[in-house]
Amino acid sequence: MYEERTIERKQLYRGRVIQVQLDTVVMPDGRTRIREIVVHPGAVAIVPVVDGKVLLVEQYRKAIERTTLEIPAGTLEAGESPEECAERELMEETGYQASQWDKLIEYYPSPGFSSELIHVFKASGLKRVSDAKELPLRFLELHELEAKIRTGELKDSKTIIGVLMMR
Amino acid sequence: MYEERTIERKQLYRGRVIQVQLDTVVMPDGRTRIREIVVHPGAVAIVPVVDGKVLLVEQYRKAIERTTLEIPAGTLEAGESPEECAERELMEETGYQASQWDKLIEYYPSPGFSSELIHVFKASGLKRVSDAKELPLRFLELHELEAKIRTGELKDSKTIIGVLMMR
Repeated sequence: MYEERTIERKQLYRGRVIQVQLDTVVMPDGRTRIREIVVHPGAVAIVPVVDGKVLLVEQYRKAIERTTLEIPAGTLEAGESPEECAERELMEETGYQASQWDKLIEYYPSPGFSSELIHVFKASGLKRVSDAKELPLRFLELHELEAKIRTGELKDSKTIIGVLMMR
Repeated sequence: MYEERTIERKQLYRGRVIQVQLDTVVMPDGRTRIREIVVHPGAVAIVPVVDGKVLLVEQYRKAIERTTLEIPAGTLEAGESPEECAERELMEETGYQASQWDKLIEYYPSPGFSSELIHVFKASGLKRVSDAKELPLRFLELHELEAKIRTGELKDSKTIIGVLMMR
């Protein structure tokens, strides 16, 4: 089985969310390579269904310098399970609570350099329990979201995958 | 319109593929925040169709310490267009050349911290022009790949999105 054995690890940055490390690895044929790796705690994303529509949030993303339309999401905190994180993020970002949770999929957004794993849930039986929502909300039908994926208006991986997995 | 104005930028790491920077931003309400950002040159992924099957590669990914089944892909080099990069990566990783290229979608795998944009193409009219393939090849039907997405065997975003966009 192909495997890369790590013979040296240099931590370059330890931030609030991500860490960056350089791993020196030995490949099976004996050659060595340097791998640049972003270590990420993992994240959750939620497809919340309200009256047959999907609840999305508008969010400014500094890394791409634009506001995007995304399903609610967030980063795992220390000791938190994906399920707990999903409930917390849905509440914080939208003010909604769900009575029914179903796992849709989990995936690696960019396994070439990042360890991030995103857990995607469907949330239903929603009720508004707080007005303290953090982000502007939008409600769209699944077929409208599928159209926005085709036209390129939706470009965020968790939103694309969450919507396409709802079929 | 919501926007975050950058008032300070600290470059922490300039690597072979990624750069890491800390942006200090001012939000519209006047508060400041630090944003951890991975700057990435962008990438391509290809859904190559050969005799009705999709050609995939097995690839060891150090960041997640496992071998994954993925569609061919790679990082944009300086001055290279996504189309040129897709042709080059398909050839390098599989030894195949395509006569027909169609753009399926482009997406941000992880816009919360990374600027990476992945361009996904469908490649058809394939012919084997070289034996110098870099990676082990696999040929699977679309419905087999859709089943592997449902069971969780496929966990790579570009492969999931590429396959689901082929419908």
